[in-house]
Amino acid sequence: MSAAEETVGGEADAWAEVTPDAARRLLVAAVEAFAERGYHATTTRDIAGRAGMSPAALYIHYKTKEELLHRISRIGHDKALDILRTAARGEGTATERLADGVSSFVRWHAGRRTTARVVQYELDALGPDARAEIVALRRQVDAEVRGIIEDGVAAGEFDVPDVQGTTLAILSLCIDVARWFNVDGPRTPEQVGELYAGLVLRMVGAH
Amino acid sequence: MSAAEETVGGEADAWAEVTPDAARRLLVAAVEAFAERGYHATTTRDIAGRAGMSPAALYIHYKTKEELLHRISRIGHDKALDILRTAARGEGTATERLADGVSSFVRWHAGRRTTARVVQYELDALGPDARAEIVALRRQVDAEVRGIIEDGVAAGEFDVPDVQGTTLAILSLCIDVARWFNVDGPRTPEQVGELYAGLVLRMVGAH
Repeated sequence: MSAAEETVGGEADAWAEVTPDAARRLLVAAVEAFAERGYHATTTRDIAGRAGMSPAALYIHYKTKEELLHRISRIGHDKALDILRTAARGEGTATERLADGVSSFVRWHAGRRTTARVVQYELDALGPDARAEIVALRRQVDAEVRGIIEDGVAAGEFDVPDVQGTTLAILSLCIDVARWFNVDGPRTPEQVGELYAGLVLRMVGAH
Repeated sequence: MSAAEETVGGEADAWAEVTPDAARRLLVAAVEAFAERGYHATTTRDIAGRAGMSPAALYIHYKTKEELLHRISRIGHDKALDILRTAARGEGTATERLADGVSSFVRWHAGRRTTARVVQYELDALGPDARAEIVALRRQVDAEVRGIIEDGVAAGEFDVPDVQGTTLAILSLCIDVARWFNVDGPRTPEQVGELYAGLVLRMVGAH
């Protein structure tokens, strides 16, 4: 994926919270390298080289390759949770909040697909402590969506025989946008978000 | 993933069409190695070692690592197309055929998740000719699902404002089962297949 495509996708300025600048450049380089070659085929030397830095300069900011993956995964999951929590706690009916959460979550997975792929496909490469932290964040993401669905069922807006299974399917549908979304394809992230919000409202039997 | 887990998932005997036995063992070893470490981090020496063979013995059957990936991807896509074509061309209403296709496709992605992940996540590693062949098979997979939906709309069974987008979403939902399905989780492949068939019928507005 080219740097321009990354910028179009909105990934280039997505790491604004990472400082100093050198640490951010290394993180962006790591995401690109992991996405292109996979975590295990990427060395810290590759990452430093992509960022125009020496391996020694990398070690000032990150002790190991796993620390880079952990940081990427943590920021990605924090953002995912933030998006869904904002939707879940917004004003409006469960129908409106679910449509808002799904369309925002889909836009994010389309726009930041390179990061999302790394975060989703390289989970097994995290060590036990990092993995436990990320799994806890994933449970919170799940709980936000489940909460909206439970609200909708309680309010008589939704008809959902299997709340846990439907929550899982909705999140899976949104996450997989990162696998197939193509900036050269016929749909914008906004259009996919709108399409998916409508399909998800059907999945929960919204009136 | 352990060999036992693979067997439980039904992956061990999934390559019966590959002969002779040595070629099949190498293919199974390649799937496991690509899934664990990624395509780029795996060498033909790793694959031969997993199969209990020498690198020289591997070259009798496969000239390159890419040839192994291509063979895996081709067999996986042929099977996916076979499953959906069988459902699409079966007897019964569009509603019955769509439910049948989705539940079969989901069971296959849950049971053969290791293969499905390799096939889906390592597409970019194929050379141009192999990739073109696989893309053509993916278009046929898409056409089978779209055909059932168009039949259902024509028969007045379904209400689908965006047939192409809904087809894409249904396939995406089923494929992503390979990412999250866990044999130690609360649901069997059959139960996920049944859940998803119901959700997909809602997505198409089945009466």
